Amino acid sequence: MRYYPDPARDLDVGLVNDAIEEAFAEQGRGNVQMPPKVYINLERGDFRTMPAYIPSMNIAGVKIVNVHPGNPGLGLPTVMALTVILDVETGVPLAILNATDLTDLRTGAAGAVAAKYLSPRRTIRLGLVGSGRQALAQLQAIARELPVEEVLVWSRDGKNAESFCRRISESFACRSVALPDACGCDIVVTTTPSREPLVKSEWIGEGTHINAIGADAPGKEELDPVILERARVFVDDPVQAVHSGEVNVPIGKGIFSAGQIAGTLGELVLGKKKRESESEITVFDSTGLAIQDLVLARLVLEKPDGFIELKFP
Amino acid sequence: MRYYPDPARDLDVGLVNDAIEEAFAEQGRGNVQMPPKVYINLERGDFRTMPAYIPSMNIAGVKIVNVHPGNPGLGLPTVMALTVILDVETGVPLAILNATDLTDLRTGAAGAVAAKYLSPRRTIRLGLVGSGRQALAQLQAIARELPVEEVLVWSRDGKNAESFCRRISESFACRSVALPDACGCDIVVTTTPSREPLVKSEWIGEGTHINAIGADAPGKEELDPVILERARVFVDDPVQAVHSGEVNVPIGKGIFSAGQIAGTLGELVLGKKKRESESEITVFDSTGLAIQDLVLARLVLEKPDGFIELKFP
Repeated sequence: MRYYPDPARDLDVGLVNDAIEEAFAEQGRGNVQMPPKVYINLERGDFRTMPAYIPSMNIAGVKIVNVHPGNPGLGLPTVMALTVILDVETGVPLAILNATDLTDLRTGAAGAVAAKYLSPRRTIRLGLVGSGRQALAQLQAIARELPVEEVLVWSRDGKNAESFCRRISESFACRSVALPDACGCDIVVTTTPSREPLVKSEWIGEGTHINAIGADAPGKEELDPVILERARVFVDDPVQAVHSGEVNVPIGKGIFSAGQIAGTLGELVLGKKKRESESEITVFDSTGLAIQDLVLARLVLEKPDGFIELKFP
Repeated sequence: MRYYPDPARDLDVGLVNDAIEEAFAEQGRGNVQMPPKVYINLERGDFRTMPAYIPSMNIAGVKIVNVHPGNPGLGLPTVMALTVILDVETGVPLAILNATDLTDLRTGAAGAVAAKYLSPRRTIRLGLVGSGRQALAQLQAIARELPVEEVLVWSRDGKNAESFCRRISESFACRSVALPDACGCDIVVTTTPSREPLVKSEWIGEGTHINAIGADAPGKEELDPVILERARVFVDDPVQAVHSGEVNVPIGKGIFSAGQIAGTLGELVLGKKKRESESEITVFDSTGLAIQDLVLARLVLEKPDGFIELKFP
């Protein structure tokens, strides 16, 4: 059994995007086993258990990931993860991966795949609502699919947005801006832990595509529900989205319904669904799927090094 | 983060039984979070993901366990397991345990706790239907709670039963017997992977207690359903038992119902339920609970050695 302490290092973002796109294609074809993630609530956070199996890729396993919002005050990441990979033929554990950085990468890549299929244009201005680790992962992944002219970043603390811009200044033109300005871009990516709508409908122009990433647990939401009414809303997984995605609070309040979901990212990848006009607003509601973690683990396991051997059984 | 390659070594069976009893007590008090285990079906087996949290013991984590019946032909155990323990305060992974032997121990201990509360008498003749790893674990755990006068073992291949007896001959009087004779003991423990009833009702006398251990997935059963009609049936967890325990097939066929379940092991431990007469037949239907894995992990984490340190994050 292998342990990978730092498996995200040296992973190519383009390869990651391709692997994630293929995972969504397999899901769209109905070729995966993936029960909804299971939540355990702890006093200061929660953890989620995410098993899955992709037969065509011969990979099966489980990601275990926590969310503890108070962790940064203790010098720890909010989100940390382990992925366990089992041999499909015998069930023997093959590998354990430190999946903290992989989780950032795979969530960013899902946003990139959604942007590739739903962007209103080929060269984009990118608005980032939130400037943390996931904002950076989304930018880096999206930039591999679409040329990014300019990045407009909003953060509740403007210093964080400025620091974000300095960090990416060698590769991107970037400005710290007011929230309405970040929302005025071709593609808007929301990555905050908000539990009330931050993004007002009046700030979102026709043709905008939004990656709604932050809402990943019951009670979380970032978008004015009026935006969902105006938009075509795509999800990664309908069951998870209804339970814990951007649509979970509006559905709970009866102002949006599961029947209004336009389709899945898998259907977009397979060409079964698509953006239908330049003017329509599209939303990708991401909750994060176990199959994303599996395909990244598969990329890692192909590498000839970066692990230590552990005795098992 | 620690990795324990062989955490079952040197664990005291008496301490294990006590820990398991306390886990069931906490469950009986309603003080645990434990969603039903999640099954993923592979071509030659399956794996189950089992998250849980016991607040009073400050322990949370996930067991991942496979069942591949063809594995012995490949020189591997049918069942292998890993347990991941997370820090409750921060979610950081604290430890990964090779949980293959621990799984045997904790399942045996649940049988011992059931036997302690449901045995018709204090000194017993023990019948074993099946002579594999779990039969041995049940014997060793039960013998810590009740003096065992004699062990009668049946196996489909009589050589396995004879070999089992030789293995335990220093500690126990043991005979390889016909199936009806094994079923004629005070306590009968079934540990086979059977998918059809093996134990006939006419072989089970008044007052017998049965630990029905083998059925742990949909479609598995070991007992003639008439026995369930005659008996008071206790379960470890009602939801899991209905889905995958000894009662799952009879319930599916409409010849037993969830409403006929007499209670849980937790209720027995707390004294809310008990054996009501010397003549009644009792059954403990075990599916295996994630909280059992957590309390054993807790015992292991208290030991000052037996692990290696892994870099995380």
